[in-house]
Amino acid sequence: MSHAHIRTEKCTHIRIYKSLISSQFRDPIQHTHARTEGIANIFFFFFLAVTRMEADGVKNWVLVVTAQTPTNIAVIKYWGKRDESLILPINDSISVTLDPAHLCTTTSVAVSPSFTHDRMWLNGKEISLSGGRFQNCLRELRFRANDVEDDDNGIKITKKDWDKMHVHIVSYNNFPTAAGLASSAAGLACLVFSLAKLMNVKEDHSKLSAIARQGSGSACRSLYGGFVKWVMGKEENGSDSIAVQLADEKHWDDLVIVIAVVSSSQKETSSTSGMRDTVETSALIEHRAKVVVPKRIIQMEEAIKNRDFPAFAALTCADSNQFHAVALDTCPPIFYMNDTSHRIISCVEKWNRFEGTFQVAYTFDAGPNAVLISRDRKTAALLLQRLLFYFPPQSETDLNSYVIGDKTILRDAGIQEVKDSETLAPPPEINANTPAHRYKGDISYFICTGPGRGPVVLTDENQSLIDPKTGLPK
Amino acid sequence: MSHAHIRTEKCTHIRIYKSLISSQFRDPIQHTHARTEGIANIFFFFFLAVTRMEADGVKNWVLVVTAQTPTNIAVIKYWGKRDESLILPINDSISVTLDPAHLCTTTSVAVSPSFTHDRMWLNGKEISLSGGRFQNCLRELRFRANDVEDDDNGIKITKKDWDKMHVHIVSYNNFPTAAGLASSAAGLACLVFSLAKLMNVKEDHSKLSAIARQGSGSACRSLYGGFVKWVMGKEENGSDSIAVQLADEKHWDDLVIVIAVVSSSQKETSSTSGMRDTVETSALIEHRAKVVVPKRIIQMEEAIKNRDFPAFAALTCADSNQFHAVALDTCPPIFYMNDTSHRIISCVEKWNRFEGTFQVAYTFDAGPNAVLISRDRKTAALLLQRLLFYFPPQSETDLNSYVIGDKTILRDAGIQEVKDSETLAPPPEINANTPAHRYKGDISYFICTGPGRGPVVLTDENQSLIDPKTGLPK
Repeated sequence: MSHAHIRTEKCTHIRIYKSLISSQFRDPIQHTHARTEGIANIFFFFFLAVTRMEADGVKNWVLVVTAQTPTNIAVIKYWGKRDESLILPINDSISVTLDPAHLCTTTSVAVSPSFTHDRMWLNGKEISLSGGRFQNCLRELRFRANDVEDDDNGIKITKKDWDKMHVHIVSYNNFPTAAGLASSAAGLACLVFSLAKLMNVKEDHSKLSAIARQGSGSACRSLYGGFVKWVMGKEENGSDSIAVQLADEKHWDDLVIVIAVVSSSQKETSSTSGMRDTVETSALIEHRAKVVVPKRIIQMEEAIKNRDFPAFAALTCADSNQFHAVALDTCPPIFYMNDTSHRIISCVEKWNRFEGTFQVAYTFDAGPNAVLISRDRKTAALLLQRLLFYFPPQSETDLNSYVIGDKTILRDAGIQEVKDSETLAPPPEINANTPAHRYKGDISYFICTGPGRGPVVLTDENQSLIDPKTGLPK
Repeated sequence: MSHAHIRTEKCTHIRIYKSLISSQFRDPIQHTHARTEGIANIFFFFFLAVTRMEADGVKNWVLVVTAQTPTNIAVIKYWGKRDESLILPINDSISVTLDPAHLCTTTSVAVSPSFTHDRMWLNGKEISLSGGRFQNCLRELRFRANDVEDDDNGIKITKKDWDKMHVHIVSYNNFPTAAGLASSAAGLACLVFSLAKLMNVKEDHSKLSAIARQGSGSACRSLYGGFVKWVMGKEENGSDSIAVQLADEKHWDDLVIVIAVVSSSQKETSSTSGMRDTVETSALIEHRAKVVVPKRIIQMEEAIKNRDFPAFAALTCADSNQFHAVALDTCPPIFYMNDTSHRIISCVEKWNRFEGTFQVAYTFDAGPNAVLISRDRKTAALLLQRLLFYFPPQSETDLNSYVIGDKTILRDAGIQEVKDSETLAPPPEINANTPAHRYKGDISYFICTGPGRGPVVLTDENQSLIDPKTGLPK
């Protein structure tokens, strides 16, 4: 393909975005963004980055949409499918959406007559789209695509055209992939959400959640902010297996979440094969799915509705432990938590017991990282003191890169420098006569965050990950 | 009490025993011993060490019995009581008795008119006998005690006297106490067995097992060698909650057992409080006890009967994992296994998968130590090679103290010196392209052993732990 002359039209103001690309584990930039629910068509052409290329008299252009989607942490866990290809779960699950300011996927999707096949790049590396899960999502979206028209730029894609048009997808997580931080949830949700915008899909978030679900089960819960329930559904075709919002992020914004990133190494057992093995071999999973979880779902909805932290925390901890219990009851057994995870649980359990009431809940996904939910900011600061007491940074570590995200928690904890963490007194709940073990180096870093909003389109073209001239990753 | 003159009568030949006292973690001495079942009264006076003391015209004496009792490892686990004080379990369990040549408790019990109260010493330290469990065992035994007469030594204790007579108990484990190696099982079984001999209790082993059960649940299974089932029973008073022998140790003597002692530190959660918490808080334990275990018991009995190693190994691994799963499903969660335990499981699972059939089964009690059961001697040597590859000894370690017990397995593995373990090739089941992790120092030592016999009385007075003159620990 040759381009005689290339004209780029930018529809948004300039922001520096490239640092998000170059540094994998840093505090992402705060973005300005528009809320999108229900207003897709009105602002549709305002966030498209369009590049029109005229070569040899043939009109050419690249149409780009960029979106940002949060990750989520389940407090009642999804583990086990009743349908492998449609990704239909054996029980309902409930999650908290995490603030995308600190943990999110950014995805740019583009369409152009010049693209010869669908391509995708994840975290800077091209990956295959041939997997059934990607194909299911793309097929479902193309099926629901509508006309896209932009007279100014000479673009016209009809509903029928989408079958022949190819897309480029560039996606980036600002947190470790496949380390139990639900990267695939945010990733697939973002892919579906951004393609839906590009393709002018008119279905609401609930329908989009059913499409995202076919890419990665827990992705469906990332279509909403706040507190989200994935209803398992009853239909064989999965049409009623969708996410619904229980409450938005403002409903319970006292909560502060501290994530302890124990290891950024890839987990040994993927969730997909792990949960298949559990369903096939665990003698306990059916009882969990049919008897235990249905009760917990009702109790958790009630706890969220009433902002009842003790009930919320008790259910969250119990359900995390039960998920890891059924993983362990699998043949061969699956261990996602390690000794450091166990030590974090022990730290939280001792403190809660000492106070006589829940200060903090813990939950672990398919990896060793702890997600710790504090009842409020004050408790979060006390939690951070404890975490830095047990897991002090290496002396040469920059505190700024050891505790990332919402830095105000660190300030509230009264810790300004690495040496402040070194002189922390043992928490009162541990026996003063027993020297406390401290585990320097066992934690990579902490992320301070909270419940957050759902997906948004990024209107600033500088936040786009696709070069609007080439249609390739920037 | 003053002793004018003291005369000691020894009824057995001399053997050196003191080294068993001084070294806690060594290969115990091989003992000569008499089998005792059903012949108690015939040889009763042959194994008593009697010391007669005549002071101020008052006849005095110390009557001592010494016994050795094996520990056992459950392959279908006991976890959870339906009656806390009688120690009645919520499910049947099955165990393999371990060779007492390598793991056992030795207990000497003594009675004397000079003793003023019941006393006990465990591993060289006096401990309280006031606990309900000791008291239950002592009461049950006194209730069943019979006349003991020795005309030659002027000893006569009538059935009624036992209520007023006091005993001294000195017990010693040749393996770490409370580290998940069922020390309390062997300990309580030995206490009950030796006191029963001392008191001329005529009940058979099955009745004695019901008494030992009241001291420590799993102790009842240590009253027999080989393969033992603890029948949970139905009676409220626990009379039918007894151990029965499924097969003796000769039935399946191909099996070789390697124990990896991961840590000799005391476990954080005792079995007693742990299983109580599980019964009270786990949402899975009832399903396990009522639905899963009854099926596994039938399958395991069949596997043992037929010496069907694949079935035996599959059940053993699955039930160990499920026990740890319900421990994890407890509030607060209980972790007995650590990262090293997980690595041992991973090593075994990889190997079994590579071979396409079970070579080795693993099982873990309430601690991090692995009990690995190999199908035969050849497999045990291959297992030991793998274990020494992943967990080589520290360079300064003496191989002789790193692999203890049945040394012939080490010889079969072709390892004579520490340096032989350093040059071991990675096992074929691990990916040649990935450098294998080796964990030097993570294992304290290995014990090679096998299925073994039940309790025996030790007839050699030098094996006694009680000084027959003073009635106190030697």
